[in-house]
Amino acid sequence: MTMAITLAVDCMGGDHGAAVTLPATFDFLRKDVACAAILVGREEVLRPYLGSALAEFGPRLAIRPAAETVGMDEAVASALRGKKDSSMRVAIDLVKEGLADAAISAGNTGALMAISRFVLKTLPGIDRPAICSILPSARGTTYVLDLGANVDCTPEHLLQFGIMGAMLVSALEHRERPSVGLLNIGEEEIKGSEVVKRAAELLRQSGLNFAGNVEGNDIFKGTTDVVVCDGFVGNVTLKASEGLAQMIGGALKEEFSRNLLTRFAALVALPVLKSFRRRFDHRRYNGASLLGLKGVVVKSHGSADRLAFFCALERAAEAARQKLPEKIALRMAAVSPAPTLCD
Amino acid sequence: MTMAITLAVDCMGGDHGAAVTLPATFDFLRKDVACAAILVGREEVLRPYLGSALAEFGPRLAIRPAAETVGMDEAVASALRGKKDSSMRVAIDLVKEGLADAAISAGNTGALMAISRFVLKTLPGIDRPAICSILPSARGTTYVLDLGANVDCTPEHLLQFGIMGAMLVSALEHRERPSVGLLNIGEEEIKGSEVVKRAAELLRQSGLNFAGNVEGNDIFKGTTDVVVCDGFVGNVTLKASEGLAQMIGGALKEEFSRNLLTRFAALVALPVLKSFRRRFDHRRYNGASLLGLKGVVVKSHGSADRLAFFCALERAAEAARQKLPEKIALRMAAVSPAPTLCD
Repeated sequence: MTMAITLAVDCMGGDHGAAVTLPATFDFLRKDVACAAILVGREEVLRPYLGSALAEFGPRLAIRPAAETVGMDEAVASALRGKKDSSMRVAIDLVKEGLADAAISAGNTGALMAISRFVLKTLPGIDRPAICSILPSARGTTYVLDLGANVDCTPEHLLQFGIMGAMLVSALEHRERPSVGLLNIGEEEIKGSEVVKRAAELLRQSGLNFAGNVEGNDIFKGTTDVVVCDGFVGNVTLKASEGLAQMIGGALKEEFSRNLLTRFAALVALPVLKSFRRRFDHRRYNGASLLGLKGVVVKSHGSADRLAFFCALERAAEAARQKLPEKIALRMAAVSPAPTLCD
Repeated sequence: MTMAITLAVDCMGGDHGAAVTLPATFDFLRKDVACAAILVGREEVLRPYLGSALAEFGPRLAIRPAAETVGMDEAVASALRGKKDSSMRVAIDLVKEGLADAAISAGNTGALMAISRFVLKTLPGIDRPAICSILPSARGTTYVLDLGANVDCTPEHLLQFGIMGAMLVSALEHRERPSVGLLNIGEEEIKGSEVVKRAAELLRQSGLNFAGNVEGNDIFKGTTDVVVCDGFVGNVTLKASEGLAQMIGGALKEEFSRNLLTRFAALVALPVLKSFRRRFDHRRYNGASLLGLKGVVVKSHGSADRLAFFCALERAAEAARQKLPEKIALRMAAVSPAPTLCD
């Protein structure tokens, strides 16, 4: 039996707000019948999307009003200090108070990270939380972190990312000893900075299933389950990949709609193209985890649609069910003496 | 009239050696009838691929024997110090001696960079040479540097990369004031490291057509002509992009060859797929420039085929014809007082 989990859903975040977050939450409650959800947001905005949901889900669905909304481009400081009754803040408060097991938001990443960190605090041994995204690979999926929260990282941070990433894969993919790779460059003469070299040593001593250095192409080859890098490299790589995929998709569309003949070809090839698209459907990979916090927080892509937001809800529930923060804390306790002993 | 240019071709480098480098060089000489080439390598290896080329091209084709070859995985130190008669070294020596206007090699990147730097030296004001690659974008091409030569960069290095990249685009694309973007991340709270912030200031004062920060996806959108980043980020991004493109290409192939029906669809869609493939044919982007040296050196991909190596030869000839090193030196002289005045 799946354990009952309550999700606190920031219903106001993202490009589409309640129009996406509510239907997706209802889909989730229908699928995961043991779970419950607390919808957080402005009641008058949520109301039109409720339909008969309150009747349908009974005690599994609640509304928690929150008067304010964090803007997608709002400054972090203003969101953190100025909006104590924002839907994002209230959703995270619910986790802190133990009324929810996980918070999900499609809002402003910087604000979500700052508020989560401020309200929930980091786990013992974790200096900085990280954002871990899931990318498709030739073999399935690759978990990459950090993706933007930490620009300048020490070797110890990269070690912590490795531990958190491995625990996340264990929780979401139910893999015992996920392999961890350290993102580096190939040129022999210049193999990585001092930080990366030292991080490799720490990872080697960590007891993780550390596979050594990997290169950029290994992310999509699926060489390791987890790829660790600093937030600058991770963010640039993720966005470049998104840009490339968009360019390729756009070009494919353009070529197939060039004239009558190519349109006919598209018609014939439609089932193939659909199956191809399904394979890399970015919606299925939605739901980045904010790791290292005393609580589960999942960030959905701002442009997420109903299916994408549903996938993020599933990830949040599974991470909470697997008690991810506790597992990271345990692993940190087991490994954290090592770095201090080494120096 | 195009100016006569002599290329020194390292015929032994790359995965295919003379089997690719010689036919490609002959293609080039046929197309660019004012140019000449010096084939560098072991005579007995080159001989079988010569055919009637010596007769066909007359004084435009010469052979310069070189007894040694730098291995694709050979340590840089061994290539640099131990092999003074390698085809790579001799090709670069020819540029140094003024007997050739540019050197091209498909060999070991690290060795090529080290030997070029040792033999040719860097231009005044340039601390470190950089490698600049060309990537396809939705609008044409984007020049990205550095791609692996420099892991830890100062703001001044990034400024120099910007200048060198802009001069390269001017030379190869004949654009007057190419736009330059600085690769950064989007999160407001954590916008870039101190190095990147300071580099933006320097670029703003440089007189270049500086467009400010760009993100990973801008590379493929073609937001700016040049994208500047440190060699670690550039290398990872390039390799991740290669990996993603490969994964997508592989999946497309797989989907179309799944069964008889999809194979029929592939047949119908063939002209479209071919035109699609041509658009992103990585061979057309072959030929990375080693910039900041007192001479033109172009690195071909190791796996380059005849067309790809031909494209690298064209780029080398054009860079030499446009006197790229002199242009970089002039631009550096105009801008270099600025950074020292600022501090």
